[in-house]
Amino acid sequence: MIKAGIVGGTGYTGVELLRLLAGHPDVALQAITSRSENGLAVAEMFPNLRGHVTLRFTEPDMKILSACDVVFFATPNGIAMQHAPALLEAGVRVIDLAADFRLKDAAEWEKWYGQPHACSELLAEAVYGLPEVNRDAITAARLVANPGCYPTAVQLGFLPLLEGGLIDADHLIADAKSGVSGAGRKPSVATLLGEASESFKAYAVPGHRHLPEIRQGLQQAGNRPVGLTFVPHLTPMIRGIHATLYAELRAEVEDLQVLYEQRYQAEPFVDVLPAGAHPETRSVRGANTCRMAVHRPQEGGTVVVLSVIDNLVKGAAGQAVQNMNIMFGLAETAGLDNIALLP
Amino acid sequence: MIKAGIVGGTGYTGVELLRLLAGHPDVALQAITSRSENGLAVAEMFPNLRGHVTLRFTEPDMKILSACDVVFFATPNGIAMQHAPALLEAGVRVIDLAADFRLKDAAEWEKWYGQPHACSELLAEAVYGLPEVNRDAITAARLVANPGCYPTAVQLGFLPLLEGGLIDADHLIADAKSGVSGAGRKPSVATLLGEASESFKAYAVPGHRHLPEIRQGLQQAGNRPVGLTFVPHLTPMIRGIHATLYAELRAEVEDLQVLYEQRYQAEPFVDVLPAGAHPETRSVRGANTCRMAVHRPQEGGTVVVLSVIDNLVKGAAGQAVQNMNIMFGLAETAGLDNIALLP
Amino acid sequence: MIKAGIVGGTGYTGVELLRLLAGHPDVALQAITSRSENGLAVAEMFPNLRGHVTLRFTEPDMKILSACDVVFFATPNGIAMQHAPALLEAGVRVIDLAADFRLKDAAEWEKWYGQPHACSELLAEAVYGLPEVNRDAITAARLVANPGCYPTAVQLGFLPLLEGGLIDADHLIADAKSGVSGAGRKPSVATLLGEASESFKAYAVPGHRHLPEIRQGLQQAGNRPVGLTFVPHLTPMIRGIHATLYAELRAEVEDLQVLYEQRYQAEPFVDVLPAGAHPETRSVRGANTCRMAVHRPQEGGTVVVLSVIDNLVKGAAGQAVQNMNIMFGLAETAGLDNIALLP
Amino acid sequence: MIKAGIVGGTGYTGVELLRLLAGHPDVALQAITSRSENGLAVAEMFPNLRGHVTLRFTEPDMKILSACDVVFFATPNGIAMQHAPALLEAGVRVIDLAADFRLKDAAEWEKWYGQPHACSELLAEAVYGLPEVNRDAITAARLVANPGCYPTAVQLGFLPLLEGGLIDADHLIADAKSGVSGAGRKPSVATLLGEASESFKAYAVPGHRHLPEIRQGLQQAGNRPVGLTFVPHLTPMIRGIHATLYAELRAEVEDLQVLYEQRYQAEPFVDVLPAGAHPETRSVRGANTCRMAVHRPQEGGTVVVLSVIDNLVKGAAGQAVQNMNIMFGLAETAGLDNIALLP
Repeated sequence: MIKAGIVGGTGYTGVELLRLLAGHPDVALQAITSRSENGLAVAEMFPNLRGHVTLRFTEPDMKILSACDVVFFATPNGIAMQHAPALLEAGVRVIDLAADFRLKDAAEWEKWYGQPHACSELLAEAVYGLPEVNRDAITAARLVANPGCYPTAVQLGFLPLLEGGLIDADHLIADAKSGVSGAGRKPSVATLLGEASESFKAYAVPGHRHLPEIRQGLQQAGNRPVGLTFVPHLTPMIRGIHATLYAELRAEVEDLQVLYEQRYQAEPFVDVLPAGAHPETRSVRGANTCRMAVHRPQEGGTVVVLSVIDNLVKGAAGQAVQNMNIMFGLAETAGLDNIALLP
Repeated sequence: MIKAGIVGGTGYTGVELLRLLAGHPDVALQAITSRSENGLAVAEMFPNLRGHVTLRFTEPDMKILSACDVVFFATPNGIAMQHAPALLEAGVRVIDLAADFRLKDAAEWEKWYGQPHACSELLAEAVYGLPEVNRDAITAARLVANPGCYPTAVQLGFLPLLEGGLIDADHLIADAKSGVSGAGRKPSVATLLGEASESFKAYAVPGHRHLPEIRQGLQQAGNRPVGLTFVPHLTPMIRGIHATLYAELRAEVEDLQVLYEQRYQAEPFVDVLPAGAHPETRSVRGANTCRMAVHRPQEGGTVVVLSVIDNLVKGAAGQAVQNMNIMFGLAETAGLDNIALLP
Repeated sequence: MIKAGIVGGTGYTGVELLRLLAGHPDVALQAITSRSENGLAVAEMFPNLRGHVTLRFTEPDMKILSACDVVFFATPNGIAMQHAPALLEAGVRVIDLAADFRLKDAAEWEKWYGQPHACSELLAEAVYGLPEVNRDAITAARLVANPGCYPTAVQLGFLPLLEGGLIDADHLIADAKSGVSGAGRKPSVATLLGEASESFKAYAVPGHRHLPEIRQGLQQAGNRPVGLTFVPHLTPMIRGIHATLYAELRAEVEDLQVLYEQRYQAEPFVDVLPAGAHPETRSVRGANTCRMAVHRPQEGGTVVVLSVIDNLVKGAAGQAVQNMNIMFGLAETAGLDNIALLP
Repeated sequence: MIKAGIVGGTGYTGVELLRLLAGHPDVALQAITSRSENGLAVAEMFPNLRGHVTLRFTEPDMKILSACDVVFFATPNGIAMQHAPALLEAGVRVIDLAADFRLKDAAEWEKWYGQPHACSELLAEAVYGLPEVNRDAITAARLVANPGCYPTAVQLGFLPLLEGGLIDADHLIADAKSGVSGAGRKPSVATLLGEASESFKAYAVPGHRHLPEIRQGLQQAGNRPVGLTFVPHLTPMIRGIHATLYAELRAEVEDLQVLYEQRYQAEPFVDVLPAGAHPETRSVRGANTCRMAVHRPQEGGTVVVLSVIDNLVKGAAGQAVQNMNIMFGLAETAGLDNIALLP
């Protein structure tokens, strides 16, 4: 059994990690920490866990965490970078679900996240945990930077086109829509039901923190700089991301459908829908799957990719467990084979 | 492996049965029938099942169904009663998720369901599949009448009080609220998102078909006639039932909390919350659990019980699988141990 | 033109008052105060007001408020009672949308609201602003206590039965369901979309602050003590209250439908639906109407009343404007004749 | 008073027309027709209209309709074209809220709508009812083709850029999101709350009927052919359209904000938000306003326009009333000055 700890478990990413790890056949949960909720039974905060998780929140304790095989950080940005070095030193493998290790360029990170980076020397070593790109590196990684939710949906959607050099990489558009859980469980006016329900809006059009992360991944895939316009939107639902991607075809492509199916045919968590389909976010609710479809409207020069994930699963906790499975040589789908809840 | 067939799988009860049976370690799905969708891949209608269920809908075929160990009817009322006799004759055990075998009194059934009963001779044999009441009888049953969604939430909430003879059984009130999936997947104006979202209403106040079913169960529990006012409401959400139950205490009760905890302490799917708690329907979303809390406001003579279930799981497909587990000597929780999806 | 001021306009009650007063033909908005948002254009916080309201939030200024004909308090409980005496002294009429002046018994108020009352000497003078009961008193009132949202829906529903002495007043049950806007616009975890959407729960079953207010009103209507069990529930929608009321008939009633129609036939904002109907909250969305229906299921001894309002209109801002209209001798429906938004 | 009739009033467009016309100071509703609901009181189907509209649905009767000054068609596509000639002949002015007269090219219409056009000779005369473009023509029009919901939001957003020749018109992208009421009130599985709530999806990516309508309008604005990719999405809310528009700048623009503000400064129903803003659909709920914002992310070459309307108001019934106001020389805002409902 893999001994796992979670730092910061009071948010949506935390409860989702608990749901997945509590049902994982090869994992023994050791500790879940929260300074603010120290002593509280986890199942009291999250009643869905009653009967499944008996842990209580505890103060972060390096002794306990150091005895884990793996520690997940489900903390706000800027926390994992303070504790990762000591844990790695102690031989613990670390998966950060926040953004601390996602960007390779420390200066870029500091610009977008507005604070100095506490251990930029680890940025080179950290493996970006998108298994569909970096599976081999993840296997050996000590430190995994779990991708953001938007970056997961957008990168998976663009990858086949960029890897094949088939599109005008200077003018990519990612119009992305997220459920409100993506904004976290912290109280705020903007995400009250009274504000966010029965309404739809774009936000952060001038610049969202996931932009440099997506751009970095796309540039690596295309092996060249990319120009990306990324517009996130807040959608009146709890879970789900839908990315609608637009690009201009530059090369002749025989069959986009075949291209996508071949790229992902061995991937357990990417499902290319039949030609002409439109994926729904609910088809992946609670599941670690990314479903996508590729279109070429009116047989024109613009390709449209539709890519959906559950932002809390493939976009966060599920992908973290997938990374753990890879790191520890387990079946990649272990603990992740549940079926999405529909309706 | 238990060979299972499903008759009528295009509704919400059907897709939920598929989700649960596809993940059940001891079940091999043999067939799912639908006249209207004959030939269609199940996963094409319900994309959450892609990669998990490869079956196609087929015409109902008694030869195939007769080779099953168990057949579930996820059909409209009035269908199971036409086919159950032949299947039972063939040695197949039958679980009807509709109402055909729920009432013991054929005349009462015909009055509420507006059609003659096709095999009233089976009503006496049919076992009402509420395991918390009839577990022993279910074990041996050939034919199980799976309870309705409202009846499950209401009966479980009232049982400890009625079994103990503690309340005025002549004036019971069940104010119940259901998500819209309870109305099924059939197109109708009243359950369009444009009609049912952002609104709340009672319906069927003059008389709902679940009234006689609930009354029958409560009368058996209290061993005397009961007077029940049952008011169902439509709630703008997909899944979940919340029953708020009111009764006047007639006997002195030392401790209602203890009463409830003791009644359900051995039940794997009934969770009595700590004193003072308020169960949320989302805490059982996708899970086979009924969570409840018992209150006595201002230490007065009125007891208030709050009881929540997922109408599609403990209120339908999950309870059907629980019944199957009991009938076939499996662990009662087999295939039903997933954690509710929250948020 | 009536010069109107609003103290505390950053909540949902405030923006709704602004919407109604901005469209009122006889009102000139003078000031809207908010310490925290001093200087901000109201329409910047509430973009629906762009083009309709040019005011900015200002610090509360007694000089400006004293020059108003009427001042509305859309503040948290405990604020109006600090400022009302000075305004009344200055000849300004005051309508408090919070609870400061709703209870006649200062000790009871202090028990439920957990603070000493700052001007209990005004409690006797304050008029409880339920026009369907106190229209005459409101006409002459200097100080109006605008009723709570639940109390409005519940009292209007029970009134005809209690006034006629037709029911067992010792065992009244009010099962009430509210949209989330009833909890206000203050950030809190419990009312995030991620928490409150797709879920349903009761809350405050041991005792809610609206209980003594409702009880006081019902006792006055029935001219005797009442026993009331009041259970509020949180419903996954923005606006709307649905009260389901239960009582045992004690006297023979010829025709409940006629009783209700006659009681409210002259009321511009109470609409008794035809026999057998079920009011929907959406039918009053944005309107100052209370719609209700009265049932007697299975011709038994229990009467069931269904009563719906928009909690922000007839349950708060609309009723406040209705009270203002009465106080200033305007047509009672002035500025309140808009049609509910459906769908 | 203008005598107005409505043909086909049982859908969402119909009830919204009724809401607006019932509150219009210069309109006298004469008739509302529905073959299927002949004899039913309108307020029985739409309870929000109780107390405001006393009409009953009647069979379409040319005698009554011919006595109207204006007749609105709130019918499915293909109905208005059958009756418009006779009404025009009788001197009645006609506003069609469906698509029958929106396209100038009859062959194009027949291709997209799958039926022969019954009176293509009227296509040239019919005025496309987008007042911000065709106000003068509308004044004199006998026959107005009221624009579609998507086309309204998309055209208003692109107009300033195209009229100025500032963008690459060959590669326009309109990523549009609509509430479910856009799909109408007809029963269908796809728009059940159980299907469409808590989910998000694109639809009709290969080609949506609003594509040729939008293209026609954009081409006229730019006075040249345009290449447009239009992807509509279904959003889990009742009302609202959000169009996110992308274009590549070709010319140097001094100040996009000024460009938009100047283009729409005299428009009563287009509101250009301050620089940096993100319009929310709820800010126009129930109102005839289009709010928009223009962005140029990271000062790059891509311009992003955000444009929101209420699909049932500015996207349908409200714009129809605006057209009527213009046609009859009324104040353009008559009956349309209500404030959006927020929250």
